[in-house]
Amino acid sequence: MTSAPAPFTADDYKVRMERAAQSAADAGLAGLLVAPGPDLVWLTGYQPTATTERLTLLVLAAGQDPILVVPTLEAPDAERAPGAPAVTLRDWTDGKDPYAVTAPLLDFDGRFGISDNAWAMHLLALQQALPGTSYASLTEALPMLRAVKDAHELERLAAAGAAADATYEEILKVRFSGRRELDVAADLADLLRQFGHSQVDFTVVGSGPNGANPHHEAGERTIENGDMVVLDFGGLKHGYGSDTSRTVHVGEPSAEEQEVHDLVREAQNAGCAAVQPGVACQEIDRVARAVIDEAGYGEYFIHRTGHGIGVTTHEPPYMIEGEEQPLVPGMCFSVEPGVYLPGRFGVRIEDIVTVTDEGGQRLNNTVRELMIVE
Amino acid sequence: MTSAPAPFTADDYKVRMERAAQSAADAGLAGLLVAPGPDLVWLTGYQPTATTERLTLLVLAAGQDPILVVPTLEAPDAERAPGAPAVTLRDWTDGKDPYAVTAPLLDFDGRFGISDNAWAMHLLALQQALPGTSYASLTEALPMLRAVKDAHELERLAAAGAAADATYEEILKVRFSGRRELDVAADLADLLRQFGHSQVDFTVVGSGPNGANPHHEAGERTIENGDMVVLDFGGLKHGYGSDTSRTVHVGEPSAEEQEVHDLVREAQNAGCAAVQPGVACQEIDRVARAVIDEAGYGEYFIHRTGHGIGVTTHEPPYMIEGEEQPLVPGMCFSVEPGVYLPGRFGVRIEDIVTVTDEGGQRLNNTVRELMIVE
Repeated sequence: MTSAPAPFTADDYKVRMERAAQSAADAGLAGLLVAPGPDLVWLTGYQPTATTERLTLLVLAAGQDPILVVPTLEAPDAERAPGAPAVTLRDWTDGKDPYAVTAPLLDFDGRFGISDNAWAMHLLALQQALPGTSYASLTEALPMLRAVKDAHELERLAAAGAAADATYEEILKVRFSGRRELDVAADLADLLRQFGHSQVDFTVVGSGPNGANPHHEAGERTIENGDMVVLDFGGLKHGYGSDTSRTVHVGEPSAEEQEVHDLVREAQNAGCAAVQPGVACQEIDRVARAVIDEAGYGEYFIHRTGHGIGVTTHEPPYMIEGEEQPLVPGMCFSVEPGVYLPGRFGVRIEDIVTVTDEGGQRLNNTVRELMIVE
Repeated sequence: MTSAPAPFTADDYKVRMERAAQSAADAGLAGLLVAPGPDLVWLTGYQPTATTERLTLLVLAAGQDPILVVPTLEAPDAERAPGAPAVTLRDWTDGKDPYAVTAPLLDFDGRFGISDNAWAMHLLALQQALPGTSYASLTEALPMLRAVKDAHELERLAAAGAAADATYEEILKVRFSGRRELDVAADLADLLRQFGHSQVDFTVVGSGPNGANPHHEAGERTIENGDMVVLDFGGLKHGYGSDTSRTVHVGEPSAEEQEVHDLVREAQNAGCAAVQPGVACQEIDRVARAVIDEAGYGEYFIHRTGHGIGVTTHEPPYMIEGEEQPLVPGMCFSVEPGVYLPGRFGVRIEDIVTVTDEGGQRLNNTVRELMIVE
């Protein structure tokens, strides 16, 4: 275990906000409107206690100081955010119209990028207050805003990946047979926390037929000898995400189970090997999918090959057909092909990969062979 | 402790969806678009494992069967929701355009109510796919959709209130002096869970000057003899919310502290006593505020008097200046005036109140006098 990384400073946030505002201007936008959530955390370090109907909105535009519109009630919390020194607070009090506070901060006929997860009620109110404005979701307008990680972020992502790897190594030692999926999931959560995660986001344990539902979490089913078990777990450590999958077998696998696992492993290796600066995201999906298609299992690979990871565990860039964005050094994303045989079993293998000048570098490095558990 | 209430059935959800679709038609809307969150939970019992960029949307319109658009990946989870038998699933697969699946379900030139918390990215995509449509947030279009609770919901809200009351009675017995706010907050969370809460949403412990920030949660500050301490806690039990506040004092209060507490108690009683069917929501705010204004503390009461509660702990109706909605039997909301003296201390007293034909009935019934703790 390494020591905790130095916290991000107000200057770090200032640089990010300036870069974001400049990117917006370069994209022809009048500015960015950032709602509570990962964008706001990344830009200011501020996360309201709860996201409610009360408007909190960061307004960024090139050449003007960042302004954070906040409810008066929450201003003291906002003032304590690590990025607060780089932001001017503009508070509004219950009973007043928060959009009347926000509107004068915006160009009356500008086009703005707005956080994907901003509430529809806030967007509709802005559209009504300023009929001349138009909006694009941040992912559409600036999909790569948070996609290229700097060295401090990569350090955190590597630490999160190492903690997930340590979790996998320990989970191989626990008993599976005769225990419920929920019990193994609880073990995974305990281990992630033990290895430094502050937040556990998911602990999938998909045994036997449950493994054929890629979004099955963990349930009451008792794991039995002969089961394939998909494990997919992650969360946040030092504010950055982990996400890894391995599929294990309780006792000896059948020839078919071994064959499908080998196939997914081959597809996953092919996807990782295809990572190079300049390659389009969709190419990673195509390469992994081709391996599975050629073996005749194409119809059972029912999701995209990967997603970006950073302050969230699901963000651009997406490794999906149609995504032509070229890979850039510093991008981090999952490569996670799978095969799901309805009613029978599933297999998924997933690593986080970062793009370097020399190609892909995996941040998960546990064995990928089909491991036998008890 | 009473036994758990019977779960809501598919028929219960069917009735809610039909009522919602009819309310939409009555309000001149072509339909309702319901995103994951409290509206969807209330209408279908379905809560996706995580709310992501992947579109999940319930389409309701009078005279047509409810349709739930879901990612293929999440369809098996959606099929297990208690309301699923009353809904037709329409799934879409990664790489396909979810808005192309949704658009044919909508009137091309209709006006739709959309969940307040629907993601801006989804709303923008619908606006783009169907330029003839227009939208209003559900709270604006049908603010009272979930506001009037039926007997089964009131039963759950009363159970949640009783559990919060039991929590308060127990917290009076713990030691405050010499412990951190965070320690008392952890006690509150443990007690809420012990008394049947499945989820703890907030455990405010605002001691001394921290009590003067109404949204202070709990921090490292060590509580001292002589402190006023605002306690405000709640969460979900059987899927419905609790939310109560009491302010206690460590050791003997000063004359001023006692006076401010008496004032807030008087304001809170006045607000509760004003609850009657037909009275406007803003009247509850005015009545409580008038008591504090007249005593010269008006500038220190910096928030609205109350908010509705149900499957969330913050929802319409709001007891706030400008809200002319008349109270209706079955509505449930907080009455929670407060006085906040910056840098010194705060006082808040809060009960959940439900409207009956005979007036307001409190779902929190612990003593409201200033209690002395150790």
